[in-house]
Amino acid sequence: MTDAKYDVLAIGNAIFDVLVQTDEGFLAKHAMAKGSMALIDEARAAAIYRDMGPATEMSGGSAANTIVGLASFGARTAYIGKVKDDQIGRMYAHDIRAAGVAFDTLPATDGPATGCSYILVTPDGERTMNTYLGAAQKLTPDDIDAGQIAAARITYLEGYLWDPKDAKDAFVKAATIAHDAGREVALTLSDAFCVDRYRDEFLELMRGGTVDLVFANEAELHSLYQTSDFDGALKQLREDATLGIVTRSEKGCVVVSNDGVISVPAFPIDTLIDTTGAGDLFAAGFLFGLVRKAGYEKAGRLGGLAAAEVIQHIGARPQVSLKQLAEQNGLPA
Amino acid sequence: MTDAKYDVLAIGNAIFDVLVQTDEGFLAKHAMAKGSMALIDEARAAAIYRDMGPATEMSGGSAANTIVGLASFGARTAYIGKVKDDQIGRMYAHDIRAAGVAFDTLPATDGPATGCSYILVTPDGERTMNTYLGAAQKLTPDDIDAGQIAAARITYLEGYLWDPKDAKDAFVKAATIAHDAGREVALTLSDAFCVDRYRDEFLELMRGGTVDLVFANEAELHSLYQTSDFDGALKQLREDATLGIVTRSEKGCVVVSNDGVISVPAFPIDTLIDTTGAGDLFAAGFLFGLVRKAGYEKAGRLGGLAAAEVIQHIGARPQVSLKQLAEQNGLPA
Repeated sequence: MTDAKYDVLAIGNAIFDVLVQTDEGFLAKHAMAKGSMALIDEARAAAIYRDMGPATEMSGGSAANTIVGLASFGARTAYIGKVKDDQIGRMYAHDIRAAGVAFDTLPATDGPATGCSYILVTPDGERTMNTYLGAAQKLTPDDIDAGQIAAARITYLEGYLWDPKDAKDAFVKAATIAHDAGREVALTLSDAFCVDRYRDEFLELMRGGTVDLVFANEAELHSLYQTSDFDGALKQLREDATLGIVTRSEKGCVVVSNDGVISVPAFPIDTLIDTTGAGDLFAAGFLFGLVRKAGYEKAGRLGGLAAAEVIQHIGARPQVSLKQLAEQNGLPA
Repeated sequence: MTDAKYDVLAIGNAIFDVLVQTDEGFLAKHAMAKGSMALIDEARAAAIYRDMGPATEMSGGSAANTIVGLASFGARTAYIGKVKDDQIGRMYAHDIRAAGVAFDTLPATDGPATGCSYILVTPDGERTMNTYLGAAQKLTPDDIDAGQIAAARITYLEGYLWDPKDAKDAFVKAATIAHDAGREVALTLSDAFCVDRYRDEFLELMRGGTVDLVFANEAELHSLYQTSDFDGALKQLREDATLGIVTRSEKGCVVVSNDGVISVPAFPIDTLIDTTGAGDLFAAGFLFGLVRKAGYEKAGRLGGLAAAEVIQHIGARPQVSLKQLAEQNGLPA
């Protein structure tokens, strides 16, 4: 195994975020399940957008947010995801490259527009996402650069990739290449409804050894094992994954592995504004701790720190240098 | 004169903002005059964007920001400005209509893309704008809806309209229609460099009675009369405009008219984040006070309140209801 050129390479649905602060009534009117990610078609996207207030736009996408967070910590990073060569797609490519992430996936030149997520942020800070996948559906195994995957210590995959038809083949191809090169593969379960759609497949990925590290929040963990018993689910996760990391919002996180089970508290915040990206940025901090060999405790703290930054403003990408933020808080950077 | 359907109608360059927090070094490297608005061509736009960090996008444009602020206060509003029928132009149209502003200008179907301003925000909160006018250059007198202008108590025009070739004809046409209908016309001088480009024409608009109300900041006032003597410039403004409103950042504003000269303090803030839109939102609050016949003192306070809101976050559009903010601060709403 040669030295890794990248600390982490992430693969995900490349999605542009259209964010608006709204009230509970809007969610009720449009029959949205608060806190979830719903896949929508073009007609529903138009109907939701028509009714939405003035928005703020920025690049998003779960694994992309994570990789941008990692780059902000100072990690060496790469991203694979599909946009279209349209105005939004060009902004997307700009933003991820400007964050210091290697991004070479060819944009689609025809077919649907770059994917967008219409994100409603309610006064309690919770975000409800409505995602039109658009060009993200065009990601195929051909987009997986074997050399790039083999050159990354960790390949990080989002569960959302199970939604577009060809992306799951790209997912498995990437995992195979990574393992053949002696690298590790991480999966985030993404969303409780996503887990519900692909429960058996996700369990097979874990039990068959296609993925080594698994990130989940409480709702996703409960959905995965179809139980409301947290400790029981955690025990199963410990059996099914080499390393399992479960986030619990203000209760911090729990890390399960052969070494045992440890809990790490959340990082305190002043004001919750928008939870969009909380899990993504937690994963960024935790993975950064892992690649810096900081230990699970410090990795969990780095995750909490990055999550705390992102939930105190609108949008899922960090607004400050996470490297500096880590230094200011006496954490490895 | 019939009752007005709109309190204020604004005409301006419809510009999409691409905002990034950066450092002084970036301005120096690209030879930008801090705090100004520079017009750039497509090649320079590409060069600046290529070098810029990850951005946040939202609709902007000086007069458009003002009219959105007025709508947020609860005023009845309309906007005339030119975008292209492209992805960014459609977001632009969405945002202004979603703010409650009537917006019926036909988008351009060919020619340059919707205009963009690349806005660099330095750690001191100052913004430096680089504007590619794009489709905004396509605004012509044909876009001026005579019925809409005649139905607005105040037609508000931005000095930036003097930059695109045909827009100044649209400007004069609108002012003529407004006056023929017994309405008032307001002008914002926009930018000190803009005043430097069109000083004689702006003075002629004022002295010839094409505009009645004039908004300026200190730098624009000094540029207009080519003097560093503030009191002398103010005296000249009082002669040249029916009503002159001069903003002085943290020193508040000065209002000059036949009734005399009054000063109104600024509204205190906690943290200056981004001055983008400060003058635009001041004008929104002041105009709202005017149309509510609140008197210059309260109009100035409403302007200060709206400016204070917008400079405490990234971007030039209000993030809260200005109507509620005014109520919370005991001001007319």
